[in-house]
Amino acid sequence: MAVISFARGVPAPECLAVDDLADCARAALERDGRTILSYGPSPGYGPLREWLAARHEVDESRIFLTNGSLQGFVFLAERLARGKRVLVEQPSYDRPLKILRELGAEVVPLRCDDDGLDPDALADALSAGEPPAFLYLIPTFQNPSGRTLTADRRRRIVELAREHGLFVLEDDPYGLICYEGEPLPSLHELSGGEIGYSSSFSKTIAPGLRVGYAIVPAALTRKLEELVASTYITPALLAQATVYEFLRRGLFEPNLERVCALLKARRDAMLDALERELEGRARWNRPEGGYFLWLELPDEIDASELLTRSSEAGVTFVPGADFGGPPSSARLAFSFVSPAEIDEGVRRLAALVAPAAAPV
Amino acid sequence: MAVISFARGVPAPECLAVDDLADCARAALERDGRTILSYGPSPGYGPLREWLAARHEVDESRIFLTNGSLQGFVFLAERLARGKRVLVEQPSYDRPLKILRELGAEVVPLRCDDDGLDPDALADALSAGEPPAFLYLIPTFQNPSGRTLTADRRRRIVELAREHGLFVLEDDPYGLICYEGEPLPSLHELSGGEIGYSSSFSKTIAPGLRVGYAIVPAALTRKLEELVASTYITPALLAQATVYEFLRRGLFEPNLERVCALLKARRDAMLDALERELEGRARWNRPEGGYFLWLELPDEIDASELLTRSSEAGVTFVPGADFGGPPSSARLAFSFVSPAEIDEGVRRLAALVAPAAAPV
Repeated sequence: MAVISFARGVPAPECLAVDDLADCARAALERDGRTILSYGPSPGYGPLREWLAARHEVDESRIFLTNGSLQGFVFLAERLARGKRVLVEQPSYDRPLKILRELGAEVVPLRCDDDGLDPDALADALSAGEPPAFLYLIPTFQNPSGRTLTADRRRRIVELAREHGLFVLEDDPYGLICYEGEPLPSLHELSGGEIGYSSSFSKTIAPGLRVGYAIVPAALTRKLEELVASTYITPALLAQATVYEFLRRGLFEPNLERVCALLKARRDAMLDALERELEGRARWNRPEGGYFLWLELPDEIDASELLTRSSEAGVTFVPGADFGGPPSSARLAFSFVSPAEIDEGVRRLAALVAPAAAPV
Repeated sequence: MAVISFARGVPAPECLAVDDLADCARAALERDGRTILSYGPSPGYGPLREWLAARHEVDESRIFLTNGSLQGFVFLAERLARGKRVLVEQPSYDRPLKILRELGAEVVPLRCDDDGLDPDALADALSAGEPPAFLYLIPTFQNPSGRTLTADRRRRIVELAREHGLFVLEDDPYGLICYEGEPLPSLHELSGGEIGYSSSFSKTIAPGLRVGYAIVPAALTRKLEELVASTYITPALLAQATVYEFLRRGLFEPNLERVCALLKARRDAMLDALERELEGRARWNRPEGGYFLWLELPDEIDASELLTRSSEAGVTFVPGADFGGPPSSARLAFSFVSPAEIDEGVRRLAALVAPAAAPV
């Protein structure tokens, strides 16, 4: 029996536009090979930086391309977080949490609900204790929860950041992977560009390209360039130029539409299966985009223990505790497997969750 | 007047096999796109690791592909060097020195001469003080000096390392860029594979690809994988797969021959020009490969001060002091500019060095 993975936060293979990207890689090298194949500027491939600067309406000098957006987070954290207090959502993406802990940062998780980060929790954290180095959050289709911060809360958080001089890093890899609902303004936009922003082409084109970027405060660019010079010297220009060629040819928007349709079918399959199999026995949200949903099992269920059993039964996921969530929570990724596998995987999982208690 | 750069340690643009690499990038994606475009193993693209394992006769699990070889050094240094004593050649490549200092390592420079690192200096350093975390050296066509460690010294250093249980990291990016003389065995080979080894395809194919690798002790692989997972998740697979396709097509050896011929002409031009312009007024070595030679000016000349004047006169280089060398030394890179520019650049430089003192 093949194991069905709700653990892997990666796109289904059919999302990858292999042939187009093969053409783009060749064309990029034919057009600009001597630049791409030599050492280049530490913040990355010029034409792609220009494109991103125009898209985000910021000065190009603030656009920092990195080998995946996590690499940019590492640089920022190294410069800002060592031994400092850092605010994060609870739950949040596990890799940044680990990076912060390894830098000796005091990681302060802030309360979240289905509407995302609770601004009151942020206000409380800002009113007591040492001023934090920064707030890291993923306000749209969050990893791990799939939740989206509401428009009102976005405004309130931007105001709080301004009042307290708090640096905020908004991580937005999933924002464009949107299945329904009106897109909300980013915190970066709402702040007039002050709030830091990171994203990548991992979800919109392909993760293996490792083309991420951050929009950083002008005051930090020099320090980040120094870190690049002492790490990889120049980021992966071939992948960045391939992405740029993909954009230049007008392939980005149609590809995004195709990817969203493929992934929406998977989200729908998971919601349908959960409703059919687990209605009344667990709680989950309806993410309007992204890769994940957040499953809240009855308190008496330990998701890590459930994972041991479910792996034997042929379905995996990531326990919510890995992201700082409660022991009974779980992250289900619907991005990787097919709708039919999702159907079967939820069936396998539900069979391991005790039936609803009979009414007394 | 265009500035002639003896500062840039990069290959001349005509060294870059642009069209072949464009074909290889496309072919790699067409053949193995779904693997290349998704997240992959932290130590890099499987087929390239296999190729390197066969070439170096080590187990594939010890081959660690990174985004340029400096990235591998950073990982190793983070794991091994923080706050520790680390032995290096004097002079040595400036980036590792900076990385080590930023990790709070005590960097101990060891005496070198035209035959490379002096084993007696290593023996002295090992007999006193805290046992070092490791010795970092570039024994072949060294950056910055262009010097090569002799065969006898290689054996002696391997013996010393074994006696003292010293971990050695041999950095060998230039070894294959050889213009004359018999290639010497690497320290890695002489040690039966015990000594760590790093290299890259930056000099043999193209630096912009950022495909470096390290052969690490089996005991370190797990820790390095953890660091990758917390930094860039997966290295630049597209570039690695492009390099693999280049190898698979048999393009590597003929390209290397072509590159060596282009660079040998540059080295010869520099040696000829130095002899014509500076004979008796400075000392330099005759590197048998690589990108650099080491210029030793009269003691009363400060190379940093000379650089200020020479930049105005249209020629640049890197003062030897940047690499831990004496104030009167300089690194001259002959890799980037044309033979005619080398000729003119040396003429400009020599005009700024005082004529030989008249005999008293």
